[in-house]
Amino acid sequence: MTSYVEWDFLTDFIEKAFAAYGVPQEDAKICTDVLLQADKKGIESHGVNRFKPIYIDRIKEGIQNPITKFDIVRETPTTAVVDGHDGMGQVIGRQSMQLAIDKAKEYGMGMVAVRNSTHFGIAGYYTDMAAEAGCIGMSGTNARPSIAPTFSVENKLGTNPLTVSFPTDEAFPFSLDCATSIIQRGKIELYERQGKDTPAGAVIGRDGSAMTDSPEILKALQTGEAALAPLGGIGEKLSGYKGYGYATIVEVLSAALQQGNFLSMLSGIGENGEKTKYHLGHFFIAINTEAFMGLESFKKTAGDILRELRAAEKAPDADRIYTPGEKEYLIWQERKKTGLPINESVQKELITIRDDAGLTDYHFSFEE
Amino acid sequence: MTSYVEWDFLTDFIEKAFAAYGVPQEDAKICTDVLLQADKKGIESHGVNRFKPIYIDRIKEGIQNPITKFDIVRETPTTAVVDGHDGMGQVIGRQSMQLAIDKAKEYGMGMVAVRNSTHFGIAGYYTDMAAEAGCIGMSGTNARPSIAPTFSVENKLGTNPLTVSFPTDEAFPFSLDCATSIIQRGKIELYERQGKDTPAGAVIGRDGSAMTDSPEILKALQTGEAALAPLGGIGEKLSGYKGYGYATIVEVLSAALQQGNFLSMLSGIGENGEKTKYHLGHFFIAINTEAFMGLESFKKTAGDILRELRAAEKAPDADRIYTPGEKEYLIWQERKKTGLPINESVQKELITIRDDAGLTDYHFSFEE
Repeated sequence: MTSYVEWDFLTDFIEKAFAAYGVPQEDAKICTDVLLQADKKGIESHGVNRFKPIYIDRIKEGIQNPITKFDIVRETPTTAVVDGHDGMGQVIGRQSMQLAIDKAKEYGMGMVAVRNSTHFGIAGYYTDMAAEAGCIGMSGTNARPSIAPTFSVENKLGTNPLTVSFPTDEAFPFSLDCATSIIQRGKIELYERQGKDTPAGAVIGRDGSAMTDSPEILKALQTGEAALAPLGGIGEKLSGYKGYGYATIVEVLSAALQQGNFLSMLSGIGENGEKTKYHLGHFFIAINTEAFMGLESFKKTAGDILRELRAAEKAPDADRIYTPGEKEYLIWQERKKTGLPINESVQKELITIRDDAGLTDYHFSFEE
Repeated sequence: MTSYVEWDFLTDFIEKAFAAYGVPQEDAKICTDVLLQADKKGIESHGVNRFKPIYIDRIKEGIQNPITKFDIVRETPTTAVVDGHDGMGQVIGRQSMQLAIDKAKEYGMGMVAVRNSTHFGIAGYYTDMAAEAGCIGMSGTNARPSIAPTFSVENKLGTNPLTVSFPTDEAFPFSLDCATSIIQRGKIELYERQGKDTPAGAVIGRDGSAMTDSPEILKALQTGEAALAPLGGIGEKLSGYKGYGYATIVEVLSAALQQGNFLSMLSGIGENGEKTKYHLGHFFIAINTEAFMGLESFKKTAGDILRELRAAEKAPDADRIYTPGEKEYLIWQERKKTGLPINESVQKELITIRDDAGLTDYHFSFEE
């Protein structure tokens, strides 16, 4: 049964657990903050459900390092290239965006390209940091091959998020944090649990057909017999080449500025089928609104735009119109009262980690 | 009948015609270059077909000025805010991107936000300038309200292109120049001429339905009884909120950094139904690849990525896989030999302008 876990307890546990696997105390705090930020926003695909399989298991398998060596390879007033040495992606990401923000504060703009990184969680965490600092933040990362180019059936591009946040005069920043595919695996898993088909056009089979059977898709994605369609869908009819183009831009910004790996090099599988390091690339951009007409003026205009959009005429069957970041804010207003709902499968993973790490002082409410 | 017109003749005529309506000689060259660049790339929606209605007619109606006053309102090492005083958008655009490139050459990055501009043609012209200069170029503009937000039926956002170019080691730059709607009016006009329906999901009616009758759509777009759907389509099923989010980002980057107009303010229609100045906003970003691992290294990795994408497994019914900018390059290879195909309706417009401007020395091949 799904059970609600209180935030302070969960934060403390995750921090201690990261530390138990060798992540230094301060870095464990950052990794926990990034991980739970996803759950706070309702982005379950990137929250505690990833804690064991994506972070702890990979540390144990030796394909990412708990201790992060953050090297600046090259630097100019506004730019830097960072080598993350396969450390913790969240630590690399946070330090890189902070560097971009510091540069933007001094020179108006900053951009950092990163090599040899690992899964950094939600890109929106870093762009929100920029918004919090009065900047426009942009970020993206390459990832395991999933999206097929337009007119192809082969998974080539990662889900490559193109993420942007900026401050407004409202209680929360604008924050569009999304993959350049139509949907991601996590959404298809949700359809499967609900016994629903996946919408036609979101997934393409090797034969070029639009696949809709959710359990079948999940198997086929695993073997490469299916690929995700780019935003805009299969072919050019509804302009799938645009989503394909944006995914390609993210791939290039993530890899070409830092001489890094890309596309099929990022499969995580070695020549003999063994798991290998990912050597992911990311980019982080900060643009200081103070270098234009000032933060307050920017926030006001941005807020006015968002309010006018929300006040547009609704579709007959629609309750309301949202702007990016708003749903996530509303979910957090609810969840900060209730705690985080955790399903049984993630409950088991947390217990496994607790026992494995010997954190015997921690007893979860769902164990009662 | 469609007729081919030779490039040198056409370039010379358009330059002289711009000049005849008061555009200074040097600026007329720029306006012509931007206009014909669209035709060279096969982007007919933004080429000579726009010469009379969008530029010459607007100059004659007094809603844009042939003489461009380019004022830098505010400037830092990497950023600038420019006031274009409703001059020629192409001149404002070219000078603004050049300013961003100059800043990127000196400081690694540059960004210019523009107020009080007019229709600047294809955004890709400016991002290609950046690519030509060894930079990653990004640009966007707001525009007349066309796109409905997700869960709305009201045209609120412009078609707001989010355009990116960068250099590669191939014969042409990567160049993704596209609206954040699925399609634009020009595409629907093409469907009408071909007697084809518009694909379901690209246009939403006031009743929330997906409209497909092309002639009906064209009328309804005019009266606001229809709106364009964002990339990703109507509602959230195929992630239309992503295209809506990107359109919003372009609106904010175009307006909020320069305290400018936005959304319904950009209708071009005054309180008493009269035509008014648009006061458009644009943004231009240049990122110098030399500030990272160097231009040659960037070009090589970018080219390798594009080549791997093109070599992906094709869909059974597909001839080949393209990368953004490639089709446009191939069209230019063809058109530089044939000249520009001009249809009868545009032929008539060119003759009208020739006669109106008294450019009696110019005799078009299609008049024979």
